Amino acid sequence: MALKVNRERLRQNIEGIARFGRDPAGGWSRFVFTEEERKAREFVAELLHQAGMSVRTDPAGNVFGRREGLEREVPAVASGSHIDSVANGGMFDGIAGTMAAIEAVHVIHENGVRTRYPLEVIVFANEEGARFSNALWGSRALLGIVQEEETLRCKDLNGVTLAEAMRASGFDPARIQEARIDPKRYKAFIELHPEQSHVLETEGVAIGAVEGIVGTVWMKARLKGRADHAGATPMNLRRDALAAAAEIVLEVERIARYESSPRTVATVGQLAVRPGGINIVPAAVEMSFDIRDLNQEAGARAYAAIREAARRICAARDVQIELDELGKIMPVPLTGEIITLIEQTSCEQGISCRRIVSGAGHDAQLMALICPTGMIFVPSVGGLSHSPEEKTEWHDMVNGAQVLLEVLLKLST
Amino acid sequence: MALKVNRERLRQNIEGIARFGRDPAGGWSRFVFTEEERKAREFVAELLHQAGMSVRTDPAGNVFGRREGLEREVPAVASGSHIDSVANGGMFDGIAGTMAAIEAVHVIHENGVRTRYPLEVIVFANEEGARFSNALWGSRALLGIVQEEETLRCKDLNGVTLAEAMRASGFDPARIQEARIDPKRYKAFIELHPEQSHVLETEGVAIGAVEGIVGTVWMKARLKGRADHAGATPMNLRRDALAAAAEIVLEVERIARYESSPRTVATVGQLAVRPGGINIVPAAVEMSFDIRDLNQEAGARAYAAIREAARRICAARDVQIELDELGKIMPVPLTGEIITLIEQTSCEQGISCRRIVSGAGHDAQLMALICPTGMIFVPSVGGLSHSPEEKTEWHDMVNGAQVLLEVLLKLST
Repeated sequence: MALKVNRERLRQNIEGIARFGRDPAGGWSRFVFTEEERKAREFVAELLHQAGMSVRTDPAGNVFGRREGLEREVPAVASGSHIDSVANGGMFDGIAGTMAAIEAVHVIHENGVRTRYPLEVIVFANEEGARFSNALWGSRALLGIVQEEETLRCKDLNGVTLAEAMRASGFDPARIQEARIDPKRYKAFIELHPEQSHVLETEGVAIGAVEGIVGTVWMKARLKGRADHAGATPMNLRRDALAAAAEIVLEVERIARYESSPRTVATVGQLAVRPGGINIVPAAVEMSFDIRDLNQEAGARAYAAIREAARRICAARDVQIELDELGKIMPVPLTGEIITLIEQTSCEQGISCRRIVSGAGHDAQLMALICPTGMIFVPSVGGLSHSPEEKTEWHDMVNGAQVLLEVLLKLST
Repeated sequence: MALKVNRERLRQNIEGIARFGRDPAGGWSRFVFTEEERKAREFVAELLHQAGMSVRTDPAGNVFGRREGLEREVPAVASGSHIDSVANGGMFDGIAGTMAAIEAVHVIHENGVRTRYPLEVIVFANEEGARFSNALWGSRALLGIVQEEETLRCKDLNGVTLAEAMRASGFDPARIQEARIDPKRYKAFIELHPEQSHVLETEGVAIGAVEGIVGTVWMKARLKGRADHAGATPMNLRRDALAAAAEIVLEVERIARYESSPRTVATVGQLAVRPGGINIVPAAVEMSFDIRDLNQEAGARAYAAIREAARRICAARDVQIELDELGKIMPVPLTGEIITLIEQTSCEQGISCRRIVSGAGHDAQLMALICPTGMIFVPSVGGLSHSPEEKTEWHDMVNGAQVLLEVLLKLST
């Protein structure tokens, strides 16, 4: 018997939770440990219940739905995502994966399918970290890598500490370590999420089988040339910091595009020119670098090539340069077997699929540390993400949920 | 008998006028029709008098010193510069040319030399236009191209109109047209001025024989690409406005350097990136262009080449571009015979000299419309201009004044 997700119910659930956390300034600002987030959690708990699951909330605010399998003492097959948003975020980020997971279990339940392994839906708390600048809170708590100290240190814009906000929502910050789970609890974890760019849309592909979450290096460069009169200074006597920066921008693009790995991306997103007069040769430039790759060695190669190119370009122009690394995140490859399973399942369902990398972080990258983990990307219209206009077409939501349902069935039966 | 400028007197005069218009915030802010400028005018009038000249002030605030020649009814040989400054300007801009001209006539006078043609020193009012944003006021008034309307329209930062400021200083704005002079009044005009860059300093040359004042086009470009997630968007799917702008910056440099004329200069001095997030592919860039050439056709060629390159680069990257011309100033070539005379005179005096262009505007460019006109540039330490630290070494001042003296003698005897 072919199980099919219920398009109307999926849509109602996504639209239903959209009642909570609307922001008058646009979109949704559904922040952790607020009244609106509490209502959203209760709404989701009710949906988990209707889908045939028992519900529990852990000391971090994560909500778990669980449907037991035929066997006891075996690990669960889990799926889920988050229900918090960034400031003025969209309707699908986090919600798409939460509701697709609930829908998959609901279909299994209403069809009376007994799985061998238990099924779980995990609704992660505070993935975005928008209110307290502490992303991936819920999944970090599951892994036992959140200390109570974080709840005292992190404050929102009104000066409220995370600990105070937790207590106001009925949680005890002193018990945060109790959110830790046994690493053997899960057999596998799958998170569905809207793609945060427009690769799927551009190629007309419905499903992205995520190979991993890229590693990132952030760097800043300060270039110092010489301010000169734009009319009175011949071209050959200039030490133009912007011209040097322009060469670097194009080298960054070339290295990412043609060197290192096919998946390297590198971006100069910030560039400020001083003194910034229309008739003054630029004396100084400050610019940022964002370099990412799924393959750690390829990313390191691109990083080294960009540093070397920046120094070479500046030396040739007698422009001084200082380079500072601002931060580094290691890449997280997802599980090969799960990637293949998502591809095969899409193929069987007649739904187009391609491998893709995730350029942004997700709770799945922490789950990948304790169990085989995969991610299913669905297209986002125009590639929009963290935007009030963010949208996934309903037929794409249904395709994604259908693949998730089949993958969960295969893993759990 | 070889006449020699008096180094000590020249220095005392330059340092003497520096008593007026000191700005507590640094350097000099000696603005037109202020008490400090009135004192400076009186100081200069006294110097003109000591140098053997009769003194008059015209309705625009220009001060004239005149020493009659052997012949009547013949045009005068004139030299001079201005005594106002920009906000927080330096000690030499304008003053160097004013004091060198006074010194030259003073030497001629104290040696009892009778010239055939009259000698005049013109101390121009309000060349910088710093207080009322109306540059070249004094020389424009001499040419009769200032209307009373300008005195009513122009206001300083305190809301005082130019007309009010004139009346407070004892001038009648209704009489501004009376500043107009007979275009046949002058046989030649020479202005000495510090170079506003570091060509002379870099090449170790003492005198610049100015070939002309460059023409300028100012332009603004607005580039519109697409904001994308820097991690999630592959290089080949981007429409990066900054990468397009970087290509344009380098084309501007290449065109100025290797195309058009050897004297073309072109500068991107302003460049702003939006949204400007370290992890966001730039969606938009606004950038400025400053394109100059002494040769009008070469300048127009460079301008056209830059516009064409900008459009081509953006088209190839699927980035939209809008180009707006903000303003255009025609180049003013100076008089060939005077340029040669300055070169020959420097050579005879054993002072190194090279031809140079002026990248900035001067009263000489208006005088060039009514009589043969030349400019003598002297080095400015570090190429500084419009800066409190602006400085010309005393031996360079002496060399410049000596060449000016000899040129005035040749033109007037």
